[in-house]
Amino acid sequence: MKRNIALHKDDFIKELQEFLKIPSISALADHQSDVQAGAEWVKEALEEVGMEHVEVIPTDEHPIVYGDWLHAKGKPTVLVYGHYDVQPADPLELWETPPFEPTVRDDKLFARGATDDKGQLFIHIKAVQMLMAEYGELPVNVKFCIEGEEEIASPHLGPFIEANGEKLAADAVVISDTSFIEKGQPAICTSLRGALALEVGVKTADADLHSGLYGGGVPNAIHALVHMLDSFHDEQGRITVDGFYEGVPELTESLKHEVAAIPFDEAKTKQELGLTALHGEEGFTFKEQTGVRPTLEINGVTGGFQGEGIKTIVPSEARAKISCRLVGDQDPGHIYQLIDAHLEEHKPVGATTTLNQLIQAKPVSLDSEDPMIQRAADAYERVYGVRPLFPKEGGSIPIVEDFTRVLQAPVVLMGFGLPSENLHAPNEHFHLDNFTQGIETVCDYLRSL
Amino acid sequence: MKRNIALHKDDFIKELQEFLKIPSISALADHQSDVQAGAEWVKEALEEVGMEHVEVIPTDEHPIVYGDWLHAKGKPTVLVYGHYDVQPADPLELWETPPFEPTVRDDKLFARGATDDKGQLFIHIKAVQMLMAEYGELPVNVKFCIEGEEEIASPHLGPFIEANGEKLAADAVVISDTSFIEKGQPAICTSLRGALALEVGVKTADADLHSGLYGGGVPNAIHALVHMLDSFHDEQGRITVDGFYEGVPELTESLKHEVAAIPFDEAKTKQELGLTALHGEEGFTFKEQTGVRPTLEINGVTGGFQGEGIKTIVPSEARAKISCRLVGDQDPGHIYQLIDAHLEEHKPVGATTTLNQLIQAKPVSLDSEDPMIQRAADAYERVYGVRPLFPKEGGSIPIVEDFTRVLQAPVVLMGFGLPSENLHAPNEHFHLDNFTQGIETVCDYLRSL
Repeated sequence: MKRNIALHKDDFIKELQEFLKIPSISALADHQSDVQAGAEWVKEALEEVGMEHVEVIPTDEHPIVYGDWLHAKGKPTVLVYGHYDVQPADPLELWETPPFEPTVRDDKLFARGATDDKGQLFIHIKAVQMLMAEYGELPVNVKFCIEGEEEIASPHLGPFIEANGEKLAADAVVISDTSFIEKGQPAICTSLRGALALEVGVKTADADLHSGLYGGGVPNAIHALVHMLDSFHDEQGRITVDGFYEGVPELTESLKHEVAAIPFDEAKTKQELGLTALHGEEGFTFKEQTGVRPTLEINGVTGGFQGEGIKTIVPSEARAKISCRLVGDQDPGHIYQLIDAHLEEHKPVGATTTLNQLIQAKPVSLDSEDPMIQRAADAYERVYGVRPLFPKEGGSIPIVEDFTRVLQAPVVLMGFGLPSENLHAPNEHFHLDNFTQGIETVCDYLRSL
Repeated sequence: MKRNIALHKDDFIKELQEFLKIPSISALADHQSDVQAGAEWVKEALEEVGMEHVEVIPTDEHPIVYGDWLHAKGKPTVLVYGHYDVQPADPLELWETPPFEPTVRDDKLFARGATDDKGQLFIHIKAVQMLMAEYGELPVNVKFCIEGEEEIASPHLGPFIEANGEKLAADAVVISDTSFIEKGQPAICTSLRGALALEVGVKTADADLHSGLYGGGVPNAIHALVHMLDSFHDEQGRITVDGFYEGVPELTESLKHEVAAIPFDEAKTKQELGLTALHGEEGFTFKEQTGVRPTLEINGVTGGFQGEGIKTIVPSEARAKISCRLVGDQDPGHIYQLIDAHLEEHKPVGATTTLNQLIQAKPVSLDSEDPMIQRAADAYERVYGVRPLFPKEGGSIPIVEDFTRVLQAPVVLMGFGLPSENLHAPNEHFHLDNFTQGIETVCDYLRSL
């Protein structure tokens, strides 16, 4: 199998490059047709490798692609989930090669979506192809459910899963959308933080005012906004929103130990990312801060004059985007209420605010002892010679909670990315050896079930 | 004279509209040729009304237009200063008619630059025309010195004045770039706040990071920036920069009285500007805050993701534009040092900052008892039937300090704008009755000297 994959590697990369050329950015309205094109591409790719009943299912926004192969009587059923949509690519000027002109350098494929998630999703399509080629059939029943809205928090896949429990029924949901600990050290993630994303707007006047005539005597929308934004954390890096930490699991000795078992090279991380220092909630390690503690991050801010030079105005409007990562029993809907109350309390005189929810997702915890997860670990070990670790991942895959709840099946987070692959950032890339070894691992896993 | 001006009003407005069509935005590099066109337009306008030795004098950026008429032997010399450059016009969507398509509504002329300063500058050109038409000569010697860099703080006019003290020598410098107190109540401004404009940049990493993987454990450039920006004011609206208030004149009873003499209608101002409240330094009135107290305003802020929806990043860079209005003996160069030290002190761990100076201007105080100013007041009184007040203006005309220092002549701030005319904001306009009465007032003033 390994030899066959190696033989096809160049062709597979060419195909993946075609996939990556499609700027299927789900967050941006003017990429609507590109997202549709991404769905059509996945449909054809599934049909080509022998999947059946392949359909592009419309939603109110971006479509879901479904396909299955159900001829392995008496064998388990695996549902593969992935997403063909990608993050926005800006700031464009920081990309060494354009985000939608996939380029191979040093056995890495550079493009927006290379690792998140087109490259990782493509592993499963190519695994099906290799198994079909070698045996003329698949060792288990396989379903694909591939969406185009993961990067905007899956607004339509949740209801789709709710309404199609039988169609999607499976013994395991397999998702490749996470990362190794580092090169050569695979990982099966066993918890995902939840998410809540918000946009806060501030208005102080009908229009910007001349700072010479009014400056010093009228409210300034940016002053109001930065005051509210700065109030979210105290000097110890703790989030000051009243009630925010309710439902956050206590950091027990055993959890501390579990988190500490995942290696972390501070010096290397700082050097790779260009950080002069780490910075987070006092009293917790970096792995704790990013894995099992909740966060509140300002993702964007804008207001007033932003051109060259200066415009001496008192700005009348300003906006910020904020997102939280949530853990344990933190409920995004409740956290929204708490943040709303916090803003109300910290709102300076003369400012009116608006708060809009952009996405929300509940935290998820998975059992590393589940046999479907342990068999995946075995497959990694056979291919990579190293048993995976079971980290608690800081990211969010909002739909995982719906899968576990509706399908009552274990979710196996078989990631093949690397944390250094710049996901959601310029120069996103995917290590091509993990691409080919990923195909091998998935083939091995499916045969072992 | 009044009748003659009325006869020419429509033609004058048509000419002014041509001037206002030129988007001579000095702050924006891609309007360089428009600013040049503005200079050429002024040159032709001066020649047409009979000014001599008219020249467009190049500088390293935008040119200065000079012209004179020096045949009034034994009579005083008046130097008219004004500027043909304008502020940027954004946000464009808030203009009822496009900023560079001048439109008359309700006897007001709407366009960027209508009141600041093309319309007010044009008053002087047309006054020369009317005097020449009536008498075949001017009652005094007149020089024009019109620049294209006022809105970027006159970087080249200062050195030009220094180098051309004799060419520009005058008994009074007359400037129409300020406002009435309100309609029907003229004003001759007797002090101008100084200005210092800065851009602060923050960097925390080489690129934006995935907030799921790194959020909570690494510095966030926007968190760092909003923390520093929010630190500039305390809860009482006082600027917290160490040493900032050194050199600010004490608010004596007589100064308090002088400032209070200028009427201010709080309810009307709030209603006109869409304010829910006034807001400023505690213990001072609005007129004090905006007239005789220094300020520090954030004029713009930008960082991270600003598109639709959300991008769950830890932003690595953020920037803000800041400007101060200065009074008394506050020195812009010294204030720069104090702000730099303040930022250094309030800089969170993991952030590196840059600070660039964009403009600077010293505060100016003028003597309302100067005969050249009192004669201007007489002229206003004859035309408007009301004697002007002598307010302390909150705005800055950076070059006034250079004129007073180099030419040792009184500066007469004969404004014909209104504070409600949206200068530096969308829907800037100029009341056309003040345009024609302005021409009459200037004619009367020059004849009285």
